[in-house]
Amino acid sequence: MEIIKELQYIVGSKLVTTEPSELYCYSSDASQILGMPEYVVRPENTEQVSRILKLTNKHGIAVTPRGAGTGLAGGAVALSGGVVLDLSGMNRILEVDIDNLQVAVEPGVVHAKLNEALKPHGFFFPPDPGSSDMCTLGGLIANRGSGMRSVKYGTIKNYVLDLEVVMANGTVINTGSRTLKSSAGYDLTALMVGSEGTLGVITKALMKIHPLPKSRIVLLASFEDAEMAGRAVVKVIAGGIVPSACEILDRMTIEVLNAYDLKTPLPDAETILLFEVDGTESGVQEEAEMVKSICRSFVSSIRIAADEKEIDEIWTARRLVGAAISRLDPQMTRVYVGEDIGVPIKEIPNMLKRLSSISEKSGLKIMTYGHIGDGNLHTGMCIDVFDEEQWKRLNQAADEIHRTALMLGGTVSAEHGIGSARGEYMRLERGLALGVIAAVKHALDPKGILNPGKLGI
Amino acid sequence: MEIIKELQYIVGSKLVTTEPSELYCYSSDASQILGMPEYVVRPENTEQVSRILKLTNKHGIAVTPRGAGTGLAGGAVALSGGVVLDLSGMNRILEVDIDNLQVAVEPGVVHAKLNEALKPHGFFFPPDPGSSDMCTLGGLIANRGSGMRSVKYGTIKNYVLDLEVVMANGTVINTGSRTLKSSAGYDLTALMVGSEGTLGVITKALMKIHPLPKSRIVLLASFEDAEMAGRAVVKVIAGGIVPSACEILDRMTIEVLNAYDLKTPLPDAETILLFEVDGTESGVQEEAEMVKSICRSFVSSIRIAADEKEIDEIWTARRLVGAAISRLDPQMTRVYVGEDIGVPIKEIPNMLKRLSSISEKSGLKIMTYGHIGDGNLHTGMCIDVFDEEQWKRLNQAADEIHRTALMLGGTVSAEHGIGSARGEYMRLERGLALGVIAAVKHALDPKGILNPGKLGI
Repeated sequence: MEIIKELQYIVGSKLVTTEPSELYCYSSDASQILGMPEYVVRPENTEQVSRILKLTNKHGIAVTPRGAGTGLAGGAVALSGGVVLDLSGMNRILEVDIDNLQVAVEPGVVHAKLNEALKPHGFFFPPDPGSSDMCTLGGLIANRGSGMRSVKYGTIKNYVLDLEVVMANGTVINTGSRTLKSSAGYDLTALMVGSEGTLGVITKALMKIHPLPKSRIVLLASFEDAEMAGRAVVKVIAGGIVPSACEILDRMTIEVLNAYDLKTPLPDAETILLFEVDGTESGVQEEAEMVKSICRSFVSSIRIAADEKEIDEIWTARRLVGAAISRLDPQMTRVYVGEDIGVPIKEIPNMLKRLSSISEKSGLKIMTYGHIGDGNLHTGMCIDVFDEEQWKRLNQAADEIHRTALMLGGTVSAEHGIGSARGEYMRLERGLALGVIAAVKHALDPKGILNPGKLGI
Repeated sequence: MEIIKELQYIVGSKLVTTEPSELYCYSSDASQILGMPEYVVRPENTEQVSRILKLTNKHGIAVTPRGAGTGLAGGAVALSGGVVLDLSGMNRILEVDIDNLQVAVEPGVVHAKLNEALKPHGFFFPPDPGSSDMCTLGGLIANRGSGMRSVKYGTIKNYVLDLEVVMANGTVINTGSRTLKSSAGYDLTALMVGSEGTLGVITKALMKIHPLPKSRIVLLASFEDAEMAGRAVVKVIAGGIVPSACEILDRMTIEVLNAYDLKTPLPDAETILLFEVDGTESGVQEEAEMVKSICRSFVSSIRIAADEKEIDEIWTARRLVGAAISRLDPQMTRVYVGEDIGVPIKEIPNMLKRLSSISEKSGLKIMTYGHIGDGNLHTGMCIDVFDEEQWKRLNQAADEIHRTALMLGGTVSAEHGIGSARGEYMRLERGLALGVIAAVKHALDPKGILNPGKLGI
């Protein structure tokens, strides 16, 4: 039977397409990576995924799993044609089990929806990506995502207890169990988290949840230069505070946000740090005072956000950064390259300094913001995408950003994933471990059908 | 050259032995599993480990890595002869890097020594095994251990950032990096954690550390039956409290401990729960009151430990359980089987009920204690080890304990590891995932030299 007929037979003809106009919609994610699939299939359950993989494995057809397509490294883009497996339709929250502190979800559940469902129970799901309103949990898991709360709460890998995964040959396995901890053999759950669809297709996830903190306080600290801010972060954390968020906004980010017409404008400063502490009502008061006193010798000013309303406004503003940057200049487009480095905490001041010299050298403005509390800095660069020379400078700057992060003991991707955009740095970052990665990949997907061309293997 | 000569050439003749009397000392761990190695080698650095593995891999000689030999499942016992690699001599704390929130250690560092080194800096290493004074960090990592603080702080897998690992063919890799988070490819760190020496030999570990909490409060709650205690735990946790420890002691455990001549005897009760909350001074007061008020409808009594001195006494008593059980009857020996089950939190009352019916049926007393806050229950059974009939009943009871835990969605080992003692349950617990585990093992150790006969593969 023709492949298309077999696919139609498995999921029904409405859920398969080969229409160029539809395929085009699936030919990119939120990065610049492009790749046209031959088929888009929208399975509705695990059994269908299993049957699809049996078919594609038999014929050696590439399969690229996809959630919402919000990825920033081309992870969900089909580089070798074949099938894009659109899992966004598998979007049910299957179980909210408060007594066991866990939820079961399908991979297509949008991140924010899960937190909406948990809130009435007094619980939440701590990983907190900027794309919460759009991204799917399957994608978050596949990219080992995190967000603002990972200083205190860890990344998604600390929350996944069990995954149902369809392996390359169609076998369905469970990687973990319902218990909160286990020492029974290899941690296949952790192996799947961050594997970007190259080892199997996640069809269900059982995840830990956390009680909502009773109280939180946000502090806004202004600094005269970015290095001072970096030093303050090191001191606060080494001083024994574990903030629930610790974000940096540099001058350009502040300007971009203020231009966006915020309800409460951000203070005019070279650099702002936002600290959030959460916990019991009295505990957060104590911690906020500690942050204030540790920061005093670094800041030009520091104040506590007035109330929950102001806190919400601040975090809304923070979430706007990615979109707001387009206000900078209507001719310019933000290109996501070199945007997700991570460095050891004490290298933050150093990295910030080097970013400004890369900016000077390249003649490109580099906006810097991000989760400074865990060493994760996002950079934003805009160019006129019709100007080849600007592209060249941009790519050179991104390359330098990546290599500088690695030189400081860091990573080219702290939370967005490698995809194909950052594949070339894998050898440099992982060294001989890349051989081990390739061996694991080959053992579990001998025909190489799962998301080929990614992770630099 | 003869193998023994080659080994002597690599590490020096003093650090290799084939003396039967010395080999005998390495023929068991803290479990009942026995196996005699042909060589014991005590490498002093990574390069030696690499050269040893190149040699043994070439000749297909089994290698069993070993730390302090405190394991409870035979993980460090050589079942196929060959080399026992005693890593206890590689015991240096290489780096205490407070600003980066991390430490680097060799695998032979004893757990308690690390916390001693961190205390003056106001930091600690949260995983907290009962064998802290003896066990090595390498063993803790290899078995994915945890202990009393994992409800709040997670298991060791949440702390390891990077491992230096010598692979079966002698290649040395780094599994991670110095950053607190990264999305750059497969999480080989997590794959190695809990792999019990079957995928590589850990020669160095970079681990996250945590600020010491400013304050803590311990509550002692007495219950008229174990199920009531189980229900209280579920309510406290679902009520939004994340205790830093939550331990259960049943009547038999209480009697055993009181017979040990504690400074402050434990209250006479059917079951005791110990809750610890930690954090800021005011925060813990608030949380302790919440625990008290949630527990009120379940307990026969509840009180707060008077001061730090009493808290220390309580935790010292808790740590004595394993040793104290020998006081029960000098004719009887505690045998470690079925001692490490884990179940989903809401199945705890159910599991406790079933344990008492297994006890009745087998005619064996089953002492129950452990980390109830994460569903991990330790059982203690004593027999006259010269009585074959008692062995039979013991093994039958252990088998029922394991199968019951699995039936309730649990695990046969929450923190002690599988080794060879629990290998037979791997198929039942992991299902088709066991095939994936075996494939990964085969890919990374094609000759099967690393710790053969473990993990049921």
